[in-house]
Amino acid sequence: VRTLKLTLEYDGGAYVGWQRQAEGVSIQGLLEEALHRIEGGPVTVHGAGRTDAGVHALGQTASFQLAHALDVDALRRALNATLPGDVRVTAVEEAPPGFHARFSARAKTYRYLIANAEFASPFERNYVWCIPHPLDAAAMADAAAAIAGTHDFAAFQNTGGAVESTVRTLLTSIVQVDDGGRSIVYEVTGDGFLRQMVRTIVGTLVEVGAGRRPAGSLLETVESRDRSRAGPTAPAQGLFLVAVHYDAM
Amino acid sequence: VRTLKLTLEYDGGAYVGWQRQAEGVSIQGLLEEALHRIEGGPVTVHGAGRTDAGVHALGQTASFQLAHALDVDALRRALNATLPGDVRVTAVEEAPPGFHARFSARAKTYRYLIANAEFASPFERNYVWCIPHPLDAAAMADAAAAIAGTHDFAAFQNTGGAVESTVRTLLTSIVQVDDGGRSIVYEVTGDGFLRQMVRTIVGTLVEVGAGRRPAGSLLETVESRDRSRAGPTAPAQGLFLVAVHYDAM
Repeated sequence: VRTLKLTLEYDGGAYVGWQRQAEGVSIQGLLEEALHRIEGGPVTVHGAGRTDAGVHALGQTASFQLAHALDVDALRRALNATLPGDVRVTAVEEAPPGFHARFSARAKTYRYLIANAEFASPFERNYVWCIPHPLDAAAMADAAAAIAGTHDFAAFQNTGGAVESTVRTLLTSIVQVDDGGRSIVYEVTGDGFLRQMVRTIVGTLVEVGAGRRPAGSLLETVESRDRSRAGPTAPAQGLFLVAVHYDAM
Repeated sequence: VRTLKLTLEYDGGAYVGWQRQAEGVSIQGLLEEALHRIEGGPVTVHGAGRTDAGVHALGQTASFQLAHALDVDALRRALNATLPGDVRVTAVEEAPPGFHARFSARAKTYRYLIANAEFASPFERNYVWCIPHPLDAAAMADAAAAIAGTHDFAAFQNTGGAVESTVRTLLTSIVQVDDGGRSIVYEVTGDGFLRQMVRTIVGTLVEVGAGRRPAGSLLETVESRDRSRAGPTAPAQGLFLVAVHYDAM
C-alpha cells in the first residue's frame, strides 16, 4: 500500500465544503468517489484544511492510501479527467508511510480578498467580499500585525469547533493593498486555525478599517477570549486556502 | 433629450450575447429594461460591439437617449442596483448630440486568452481556451504581426455577416506570453471587425502554434479571401472586448 499526497485547487462556490456531509456535494466526496473508481474499492481521503462551504483553495493538500500501482502523473490525469472543472489536482506525489495531510502539516497560509469599491468586477464577484464604503487599509494593517504571534484566539472561534486548546501561533498576519487601493488583501500563516478564525479576524479588521474600532484594540479583543467582542464572520467567498506547509519529505 | 454613453463590463457566460434575441437574455435587453424602468418609457440602447453569446467585455460601450434628468452618477448606481452582478456599468457620461456608440467608434480592442496547460485553473476556466498540447508562441506572434495593416479579411469572416466591404485595418495584432508560458494572449486593435473575425484569427494562430501551418502563410490565407483556407473559430469564452476608442468628445 502506497501513501500519496495530493495538491488541489478549487472554486468552492458550488460545494458544501471540503468535508462529506449528509446532503450536497463535497470536495472530499468527489475525490473519494474518483479514487474508488480507480482503486476498485473504498479510499478515505484526509484533507489538510476542512474548508467551509464556499471557501476556495489554491493549494489544499490531501493524503490517502492506495494499493493501485498507477504512477503519479497518470493518477493526476485520471483524477482530472473525472473531476468537474472547478476542482483540479495540480500535483500527486508519493509520500512516506505515516504521512497525513492534516496531522503532518506544520502551517497553513490563507488569503482573504476584499474589493473596496462601489461594486465587484463581474470576473471577481464570486471571489471577493465587496465593501463599498471607504476602508482605512493602514489601520487594518496595524491591527493585523498586532495579533501576530502566539495567543489564545478563543474570541475568534465560531461555535462548532471542538478543540482542546484555542492557543495558536500566527507566523505572519499582513494586510496589503493592490490595484490602486481598490483591492485589500489579508494574508495569514499560522500553525493552525480555529473554526472560521480567519473570517472572524477579517470581519474584525473591516470594523477597524471602517473606523468602528481602534486598530490598537485588537490585542485586547484577543485577550478577552470573548467571541462577542470580535467582529462579524466575513463571507466565505473571499477566502482562499493558499498553501499547506510540511517538513521536507 | 440627452445623449448618454455607457461603459460596461460583463461576464458573457450566461447570455445570448449583446443583441436582443427572440429567446434568452441579452445584455442589450437587460439594459433596455433597466432604462425603461428609470425613463418610464422605452429606451433603445446601441452597443459598439455586438458581442456573441459567451463573449465577455471589459470595456463595451453603448449609447442611448434619455429624457430623465437623473445625473450620471445616480444613473450608474441605479443601473447597477438593477442589473445582475455579472453585468456592471463602470461609467455613465454625457455625450454630444449625434453620438452613437457604434457609428462614432474609431477602433476597438479585443483580447483573447489561451491557457496553454494541461488544464485551466478553476478560477479562469470560463475565461480561457485551454489547449493542452504545446504551442509555439513565437511562431504565433510572427503570424499575428504579419496580418497587421489594411487587408480584405473575407477569409476570416463567418457567414451571417452582411457588410458591404470586408476590408479592415488592424492597427496592432500582437501575441504575448504570460505566466511563464502558461498563458498566451492575443490582443488586436482594429477599425472594425467582421463576424467572428477575432475568433477565426485565433483559431488560425493556434494551428500555426501547433505546427500545422507555417507562420509565413498567414498573409496568403488573408489574400485567398477564402474562409475554408483559414482555421476553426476559437471558442467564445476566451474572448474579451477590451475597449472602444473614440475621438475626444
